[in-house]
Amino acid sequence: MSGGAVGRLIGVGTGPGDPELLTVKAVKAIMETDVLAYFAKAGRRGNGRAIVDEIVREGTIELPLYYPVTTEIEKDEQDYISQIGDFYEQSAKAVADHLEAGRTVAVLSEGDPLFYGSYMHLHVRLAHRFPTEVIPGVTAMSGCWSQAGIPIVQGDDVLSVLPGTLSEAELGRKLADTEAAVIMKVGRNLPKIRRALAKTGRINDAFYVERGTMSNTDMRRLIDKADDVAPYFSIVLVPGWKAKP
Amino acid sequence: MSGGAVGRLIGVGTGPGDPELLTVKAVKAIMETDVLAYFAKAGRRGNGRAIVDEIVREGTIELPLYYPVTTEIEKDEQDYISQIGDFYEQSAKAVADHLEAGRTVAVLSEGDPLFYGSYMHLHVRLAHRFPTEVIPGVTAMSGCWSQAGIPIVQGDDVLSVLPGTLSEAELGRKLADTEAAVIMKVGRNLPKIRRALAKTGRINDAFYVERGTMSNTDMRRLIDKADDVAPYFSIVLVPGWKAKP
Repeated sequence: MSGGAVGRLIGVGTGPGDPELLTVKAVKAIMETDVLAYFAKAGRRGNGRAIVDEIVREGTIELPLYYPVTTEIEKDEQDYISQIGDFYEQSAKAVADHLEAGRTVAVLSEGDPLFYGSYMHLHVRLAHRFPTEVIPGVTAMSGCWSQAGIPIVQGDDVLSVLPGTLSEAELGRKLADTEAAVIMKVGRNLPKIRRALAKTGRINDAFYVERGTMSNTDMRRLIDKADDVAPYFSIVLVPGWKAKP
Repeated sequence: MSGGAVGRLIGVGTGPGDPELLTVKAVKAIMETDVLAYFAKAGRRGNGRAIVDEIVREGTIELPLYYPVTTEIEKDEQDYISQIGDFYEQSAKAVADHLEAGRTVAVLSEGDPLFYGSYMHLHVRLAHRFPTEVIPGVTAMSGCWSQAGIPIVQGDDVLSVLPGTLSEAELGRKLADTEAAVIMKVGRNLPKIRRALAKTGRINDAFYVERGTMSNTDMRRLIDKADDVAPYFSIVLVPGWKAKP
């Protein structure tokens, strides 16, 4: 924290939701950091920050990074791309200021930092400039299949992680070409995901999981989910491993 | 442990290798369990058991489950299938005996238990008979891309997890149809994996990681790896996320 040396950047995976699914390394990094940074919607604390609530040391400098726009708007719009690009630049600058002052900055990232994590936007802007460490975390999908007790892949199975934003035709084509699948970003894409699973004959194998490992989780076979109302971060699991010895 | 109640089965993910990458929940489960079970090669302790060495309580009953055959022989052979099937049945029986005696049994699984984990063979035989909990872990692939600092997927990227045992044509076809890929079970498949990556124009993006997060790790761009000698559990990473805002 002194002597002109720059601080260290640490991307910290917070795991899928249950605070006990933080790694020992993540707990230490969060307890010891000078600055705790995290992305959140304006006016909210964000799930990542909530997960670590019990372990943040008094006196830790908090650096919330508030998104200027919702993440569920049309991402191809030039306006969105420009706004979000500016936001990541400013966020990286705010983190860099602390690092240059010699402070360690731990950036929380739900799940695993480099697996669809918001931390990645800081990593690509700062990791070449400052000493950087990434502490991996349990992914949301691992949390979901573990809580549901669903063996997802074994042996020579292929696993495909697919965004629910793909077209119905693309989803169907990819589902027909894989042993197991995890479909992310379900939300308003659920009716389309249902149709693609039905057309490829996999609807009866599919599980729906909402807020995996959290206290208010909801999970069931997809065919037992009566409606098509689903939060953005819910996921659908299609297990592989058919030929069990 | 008494009163005729059966014990609890716990599948415990040990993470990718670094003992600090155990979750808090895994540490507690291992410290508190009556019986600690783990798969290993005959005469070896196995990586999972080595990872938890510092936290096993004195007096814990250890139940090593020794594979009767190597896992790298031809898996379609009837002999192998029959031998390994018998072994899993006997292993499940050994675990069930403890559970029926009212003892908690924690089964170690490197990485994440339901993601290619050996624990799965016990889970499918016992989870319907005994109270069961699965504690997810950090996967080997997360450990590898975190240590290498490689952003693997972001936004609407598709990630394909591919076994290196696929044919060259299949590998090539799947690599051409995904933003990001993780190729597992590299070992003697490395020359074939190299050719498939070269043919699809992705060889320059590929990273090779051996023993990720362990003290003797080796990682480099695949084109900088001079030979084709690789351990079975090394992996190749092909990152996605081309259009960074």
